[in-house]
Amino acid sequence: MKYCAGIDVGGTTVKMGLFQVDGTLVEKWEIPTRKEDSGSHILEDIAESIKKKLKERKLTLADLEGAGIGVPGPVKSDGSNEVCVNLGWKDRNPTKELSALLDGLKVKTGNDANVAALGEMWQGGGKGYNSIVMFTLGTGVGGGVVLDGKIVDGSHGAGGEVGHFTVNYEETDQCNCGGHGCLEQYASATGVVRVTRQKLENTSKASALRGREHISAKTVFDAAKAGDELALEVVDTLGMYLGRVMATVSMTVDPEAYVIGGGVSKAGQILIDAIQKHYESNVTLIKEKAKLVLATLGNDAGICGAAKMVL
Amino acid sequence: MKYCAGIDVGGTTVKMGLFQVDGTLVEKWEIPTRKEDSGSHILEDIAESIKKKLKERKLTLADLEGAGIGVPGPVKSDGSNEVCVNLGWKDRNPTKELSALLDGLKVKTGNDANVAALGEMWQGGGKGYNSIVMFTLGTGVGGGVVLDGKIVDGSHGAGGEVGHFTVNYEETDQCNCGGHGCLEQYASATGVVRVTRQKLENTSKASALRGREHISAKTVFDAAKAGDELALEVVDTLGMYLGRVMATVSMTVDPEAYVIGGGVSKAGQILIDAIQKHYESNVTLIKEKAKLVLATLGNDAGICGAAKMVL
Repeated sequence: MKYCAGIDVGGTTVKMGLFQVDGTLVEKWEIPTRKEDSGSHILEDIAESIKKKLKERKLTLADLEGAGIGVPGPVKSDGSNEVCVNLGWKDRNPTKELSALLDGLKVKTGNDANVAALGEMWQGGGKGYNSIVMFTLGTGVGGGVVLDGKIVDGSHGAGGEVGHFTVNYEETDQCNCGGHGCLEQYASATGVVRVTRQKLENTSKASALRGREHISAKTVFDAAKAGDELALEVVDTLGMYLGRVMATVSMTVDPEAYVIGGGVSKAGQILIDAIQKHYESNVTLIKEKAKLVLATLGNDAGICGAAKMVL
Repeated sequence: MKYCAGIDVGGTTVKMGLFQVDGTLVEKWEIPTRKEDSGSHILEDIAESIKKKLKERKLTLADLEGAGIGVPGPVKSDGSNEVCVNLGWKDRNPTKELSALLDGLKVKTGNDANVAALGEMWQGGGKGYNSIVMFTLGTGVGGGVVLDGKIVDGSHGAGGEVGHFTVNYEETDQCNCGGHGCLEQYASATGVVRVTRQKLENTSKASALRGREHISAKTVFDAAKAGDELALEVVDTLGMYLGRVMATVSMTVDPEAYVIGGGVSKAGQILIDAIQKHYESNVTLIKEKAKLVLATLGNDAGICGAAKMVL
């Protein structure tokens, strides 16, 4: 049995996984992300850690098909990366550099969000599909496009930047990206809280959330599940914008399925139902609609997709 | 030198082209589309015509790399077609059927709009690029997505159905597709006239177009070029919706270039400028933007892209 390594480089830790080529996770572990010296030790640390892990298991680099690496920044088609702010990287080529550190091992690099989408398709909520688009509803909204089994990084590294689709041209609040009315402002955990607070301030509608000091996306979804009207409106707003965006994506690349992940997706079926209603009413053109499924791998999606890249 | 054939099946005529594999068009010709008997003679007529043309040129099927065929309907990944209303086809597999009629020649089938996009990328306005999205602004709005040189037909044949992106959720007029507020209602030749007539009716703004019985997209663009304010507003509306849509597409698949074709594109630079302004203001996230270029092949895009499919 051959193996492959999946690496997910984050701003605080580097997650790593050793997989069998059939997708079975053999072991996962983490090392800290050393950001000093413009992050120049990160790849050395990764190479060192992989060699050590192989040794522990009486394996060698020859037992690996390759290593995939997901990084928090845009990746060009030659495997290079212009900038990863969170790592301090500028003009690096993790593909070539890591390969050199691992005796010429096959290495592939991808943007972390795109790589996570591939992971969910290989072993997670999108298993069995070959073309998916993922929406990761976390603190922000990320995403990834996988068509015919291949990540779409895009010509300028903007493939799958679904969080910054403009969905409301009337929005006056600014998004973190500098724009206004991005999907992220309504569908991220932060966005759900923002929309809820606005509704509480601007309406006099009775709500279990009124007067609560701490409001999180979870409390909003819990209130919605309990029938709270104001909370249900917030969920419907999220569903409307996400459903509309999916309709547009379906008429662009027409995936087999949409995978919904991130912290907000823990809300489960109520979220899927809210999105589905608006998605279906907006894709009148296609008889057969894409499936909506929940992500299942959580934080392992990154290492899983990274490993899959080299197979 | 090897050759390939490109076939573009329309509701009235079948356009055909014999190409050298380097993209040089050797000869193009047309035959009528025989729609009787549920269009069952169309492929026979095509095969017959290709054989005749080869004979005239003292060539044989062995001199062909293959034949590509664009059809006016969705094409599945197995090369089959559920329905082509304009041809009377239902549950046909033009790929297999035409191949059988041409002694097992390599045949590929694609949706005509997607195929035209590939043609523009191979030999037209998108030459030199490898990933483009095309918008064909004709009577309706069609389009095609080509990524890494490959047409994206989509899982349910809806890839590149860019004309039916909803761009205005407040629209009360119905689109031909049954929806409301589709891009086609503003950016097609018909749409430009519709928007103009509405502005003439609903405002008292002075305009050279006021009182004219016949208004076409061309007269509107001509008036805009002459500085007519109302006409300029119509062009800006088109540019705004198309620019917004392109921003969304860039954050999904991030092509190198957008190719604008169809009758409306004859307006030229004024159209590109109107779109570009809104596209750029909506893709704040990407530093390097996709190029906007005009299509150059006109009606030959279909045969050209069809031929390219088999190479």
